[in-house]
Amino acid sequence: MNFASDNCSGVHRAVMAALASANDGHVASYGNDALTRAAEERVREVLEAPDAAVLFTATGTAANAISLGAAVHPWERIFCNEDAHIETSECAAPEMFTGGAKLTLIPGEGGLIDADALDRAAGFWAGEGLGGGKPGAISITNATEWGRVWMPDMVAEIAAIAQQHKLVLHMDGARFANAVAASGAAPADLTHRAGVDLLSFGGTKNGAMGVEAVVAFDPEFADRLAFTRKRSGHLLSKHRYLAAQFFGLLEGGLWLELARQANDMAAQLAAGLEEVEGARLAHPTEANMVFAVLPVDAHDRARAAGATYFKWSSLDEADQDEVTVRFVCSWNTTGAEVDALLAALRG
Amino acid sequence: MNFASDNCSGVHRAVMAALASANDGHVASYGNDALTRAAEERVREVLEAPDAAVLFTATGTAANAISLGAAVHPWERIFCNEDAHIETSECAAPEMFTGGAKLTLIPGEGGLIDADALDRAAGFWAGEGLGGGKPGAISITNATEWGRVWMPDMVAEIAAIAQQHKLVLHMDGARFANAVAASGAAPADLTHRAGVDLLSFGGTKNGAMGVEAVVAFDPEFADRLAFTRKRSGHLLSKHRYLAAQFFGLLEGGLWLELARQANDMAAQLAAGLEEVEGARLAHPTEANMVFAVLPVDAHDRARAAGATYFKWSSLDEADQDEVTVRFVCSWNTTGAEVDALLAALRG
Amino acid sequence: MNFASDNCSGVHRAVMAALASANDGHVASYGNDALTRAAEERVREVLEAPDAAVLFTATGTAANAISLGAAVHPWERIFCNEDAHIETSECAAPEMFTGGAKLTLIPGEGGLIDADALDRAAGFWAGEGLGGGKPGAISITNATEWGRVWMPDMVAEIAAIAQQHKLVLHMDGARFANAVAASGAAPADLTHRAGVDLLSFGGTKNGAMGVEAVVAFDPEFADRLAFTRKRSGHLLSKHRYLAAQFFGLLEGGLWLELARQANDMAAQLAAGLEEVEGARLAHPTEANMVFAVLPVDAHDRARAAGATYFKWSSLDEADQDEVTVRFVCSWNTTGAEVDALLAALRG
Amino acid sequence: MNFASDNCSGVHRAVMAALASANDGHVASYGNDALTRAAEERVREVLEAPDAAVLFTATGTAANAISLGAAVHPWERIFCNEDAHIETSECAAPEMFTGGAKLTLIPGEGGLIDADALDRAAGFWAGEGLGGGKPGAISITNATEWGRVWMPDMVAEIAAIAQQHKLVLHMDGARFANAVAASGAAPADLTHRAGVDLLSFGGTKNGAMGVEAVVAFDPEFADRLAFTRKRSGHLLSKHRYLAAQFFGLLEGGLWLELARQANDMAAQLAAGLEEVEGARLAHPTEANMVFAVLPVDAHDRARAAGATYFKWSSLDEADQDEVTVRFVCSWNTTGAEVDALLAALRG
Repeated sequence: MNFASDNCSGVHRAVMAALASANDGHVASYGNDALTRAAEERVREVLEAPDAAVLFTATGTAANAISLGAAVHPWERIFCNEDAHIETSECAAPEMFTGGAKLTLIPGEGGLIDADALDRAAGFWAGEGLGGGKPGAISITNATEWGRVWMPDMVAEIAAIAQQHKLVLHMDGARFANAVAASGAAPADLTHRAGVDLLSFGGTKNGAMGVEAVVAFDPEFADRLAFTRKRSGHLLSKHRYLAAQFFGLLEGGLWLELARQANDMAAQLAAGLEEVEGARLAHPTEANMVFAVLPVDAHDRARAAGATYFKWSSLDEADQDEVTVRFVCSWNTTGAEVDALLAALRG
Repeated sequence: MNFASDNCSGVHRAVMAALASANDGHVASYGNDALTRAAEERVREVLEAPDAAVLFTATGTAANAISLGAAVHPWERIFCNEDAHIETSECAAPEMFTGGAKLTLIPGEGGLIDADALDRAAGFWAGEGLGGGKPGAISITNATEWGRVWMPDMVAEIAAIAQQHKLVLHMDGARFANAVAASGAAPADLTHRAGVDLLSFGGTKNGAMGVEAVVAFDPEFADRLAFTRKRSGHLLSKHRYLAAQFFGLLEGGLWLELARQANDMAAQLAAGLEEVEGARLAHPTEANMVFAVLPVDAHDRARAAGATYFKWSSLDEADQDEVTVRFVCSWNTTGAEVDALLAALRG
Repeated sequence: MNFASDNCSGVHRAVMAALASANDGHVASYGNDALTRAAEERVREVLEAPDAAVLFTATGTAANAISLGAAVHPWERIFCNEDAHIETSECAAPEMFTGGAKLTLIPGEGGLIDADALDRAAGFWAGEGLGGGKPGAISITNATEWGRVWMPDMVAEIAAIAQQHKLVLHMDGARFANAVAASGAAPADLTHRAGVDLLSFGGTKNGAMGVEAVVAFDPEFADRLAFTRKRSGHLLSKHRYLAAQFFGLLEGGLWLELARQANDMAAQLAAGLEEVEGARLAHPTEANMVFAVLPVDAHDRARAAGATYFKWSSLDEADQDEVTVRFVCSWNTTGAEVDALLAALRG
Repeated sequence: MNFASDNCSGVHRAVMAALASANDGHVASYGNDALTRAAEERVREVLEAPDAAVLFTATGTAANAISLGAAVHPWERIFCNEDAHIETSECAAPEMFTGGAKLTLIPGEGGLIDADALDRAAGFWAGEGLGGGKPGAISITNATEWGRVWMPDMVAEIAAIAQQHKLVLHMDGARFANAVAASGAAPADLTHRAGVDLLSFGGTKNGAMGVEAVVAFDPEFADRLAFTRKRSGHLLSKHRYLAAQFFGLLEGGLWLELARQANDMAAQLAAGLEEVEGARLAHPTEANMVFAVLPVDAHDRARAAGATYFKWSSLDEADQDEVTVRFVCSWNTTGAEVDALLAALRG
């Protein structure tokens, strides 16, 4: 009953098999090998983006920071939700990779971005002259840190603001597979066709060992991305093993199958919470994460039964008889685990 | 009738005289001259801080950024008011000088910092582990960007929070003279005796040509400050001319006399606004700045009469029949100017 | 016949097996798992350094840059050989991670550092005041980029200079296993007992998939290293798979066995070159790399026979009838491959 | 008898007068005033560069670092002489402002750059791929740190290499006035007509209080320069006083008159050294600096007579019966001072 994080799950056997297959003979290092070429091409196919630049890295923070480093000058502002992972959980990596660009926090329910607030902020800072710093980029997370999903029309609304203010639009897709599966949209419709310029396409939480793809739909970004990845130490020498992981995930649509499983388990869990007395959802459950407010005794029962998950504190939290928690379902979460958790919660 | 900024005023004749006096013969460069030593010592005396490290620079942004660069690691958070100059008007200089540290914005009326909100934020981020970044410093502005004044007990309340969370406390004193004059407190009571570690002691807005002092009450900071000033290009070679300005300002208490004049003019203007129909103060007037909400026709009359000042927009502003404006009084603002402005506003 | 790089070899089956073993169940992410604790402890045992801080990363550039980022301030100088990997091949990663510290290049045969030149440079820059930047660290590579090996007494000579000038001593051990195997010294004697403060302990070239350990013999560095790793995106979430690789390598002394094989093959190749007419070694062969000057026709024959290796240009190179080349032997280079290469070269 | 540095001289009375003239009334701050516009225009006229972007700053390090910050990406290399001020005396400011770009040192007599060595280095690093970092810019100093002068044809030779390798060409003109005076060339011929892209046009050493102009002959650089100046704290609020200084210097060709005086005094000193037994020039004297090797006793006599100047150590220096020294002549050095120095040296 581990609902701590999709990072706590292991690696899917198909990815392990792909790694084993890749382990044959000598091949060129630093991404100059055939498997890397092939995996990059697979990513382009999946995204229906034949001209996109694709660069693999081992972590999501790297993918985001490299993307943002290529998107803005140090004197520019990056707009994101106030709970965005790049603000709360990456130890100022975007600041490091951009040379000191500012994140400007925009409100929005469940990690989404309120379009009006964004538009006003972009307009305001554009008018503040040199001192204010120049609006440079927007970063949205799909699925969000609170488990919400950006649908194509929602992305397009943000993209229209980006276009109006000449901002680069980045999508942090650490849980992109979950977003695609949840939305039912084509990956292309959720990204470049809706106006996304740069995508961090996550593999790790989706069943890989440690791989993310930075995707630039406009290949003009390719050079900046390549140098930024290199100088940040994120170009792996035995690069074939990054490529193999993505290959393994994308093969036969496995990535969406795994994401669907995680999403389904979250839906089942969310539904079951309705029968836990005193429990309620803190946000709609749209992807593979369930945020819930639990009565303390339910929480205690679940913990006693061996369930692993995080209390999810926030700045505004008051001490209460209730506990806000996060349950993350993963590609290998089973219905039995969900049932066991629910049983413990119900008491 | 120029109320645009205290930056728009010229240089006081005593400062010009000090510059002329300094212009004699060859002296050592880069601060290794007797006048610099003497001016540093004068600053220490004024602040009753015999061990403080004092470093002159030409701009307030430099003073703040150098201070913060010495205060934190790149992975640390600096807490400041959401309207702090370091956030809104310095083009990410703190981020540049710290190597990418984050500013975390705290609410507070009139540029002050709400102590509870600060305490909660510091506690929250301290608990977020590596990803959250470590709380590192607090920066307060005295007088604030909205013309409020931190009194010694208010500073001490923030300093207690700083101490509890092991944070460096920085004071942006671009208008420190105005704050001292307004508070009636000894400079020492407003700073190190209240728990301030680093002070940007402004001279420029107080009647100088371009000089600020970075003051570290704990000389442990001296080395980091000296190297940071040098590598940012802020160590002037003909350094005696920075020193002379401060000397001129501090001589005979001129700095406080000038600040008092500016504050008095602001008080007179604020009082007079009560008789402008439909006008009201946006914030209490405590130093040399008056923030007012004006009826559009009063604003139009003042502009027509040749008054210079800024409309002061903010993110939350709605279009209205009213205009929010900032009037800044300076060391050379006269009562006649204030009267003329009020007359125009009254119509 | 692939002698291009030890990065072009695959992953040893024991490492693959360790990865497979690690792939069981849910475990804590970001290094908070038992396997990571165990692998860190194994590293400490191998180095006889019970108090050392050990942090795994995926690349050698990351290990070096994180180490140097923790070692110096941005205004400090890092002394290294003029052909050091950190200068020639890491795209200014040390500059990025240190916030702009300078590398100051010191001559020395075969990538070693001339101790007198180092001492003079450290003394000179220490005397140049603020403008010169402060001497901060020394970085040596073992085995060097030219295949030379630093023996304990040689390291100690550099460490004495480091101590005299208060410099941090870093060792880039991308090929540390080869150096240990070649020297016959205990890992402790080659590092902390000789005065090394920080070690990049390479696993990737030694048969792993992608793992290096940053080792700080003084645990005072631990915090800076941890935050620097995090903010640079180098803390892997599914961290157990980094740990497993190191575990696999160290188990039963495999790492030294593999290094010995690579070194032996290089020795065999170097010896065989004596019988290639017109060929000569460019540097003594002490580890797993052979630098040779070949007659063009020998080079052509080897290439025609399918041998893969790099021409190794340098700034001083003139066009000639000769070609300077680098042959790298790996943990899976066989005697038969060396013989085949030599046969081709001999014609 | 002060020959320590042109930084040790005071401010010319015409500059003081210009400052006094500027000190009238309220004017817009941050460079939005008429005097700034006029001074910028005067710089453009002097340089015959009607489209150039001109930005004033208070220090030479700032001018260089802002220029280079606008010239390169963090992953690019800047080529300069091994004794360039940006390498030896600016505390890694270029690294700070560029976000970590590398300076690659090129040999060349007397601070000049050997064109062949430069061409080879640019070609070499262009071929080294991502790891090597991309060649980005060349910086030359005119007059050089050793008192040599780049003539238009010499600049053009470097510019041809810049063009071939697509590098930005920057000229550090801390002593640009001395170079123009010495060369007899038009400022335009020494800069943009010879292929210079960015110029640090020094005022401070030429008789000002503290002002330099960053000049971008291609206005495409204007935005990057403006934001970089702002975020580094180098945009002075009371900007008219920077403008006034340049205005004062350029008025009636004063800047060249002052530079000629300094150069003439250096020539007189150099000539007189021929009659000092055992003394010799270390470099040809072409501008306002004389580098000489003196017998220890001559040196002792000069010091005893009260002459101020620096011993000029270098990395290669051996202990000897001789002393290498630098004499700097300034705009206010007199023939009598030179004679007195020579008399003391002769004994």
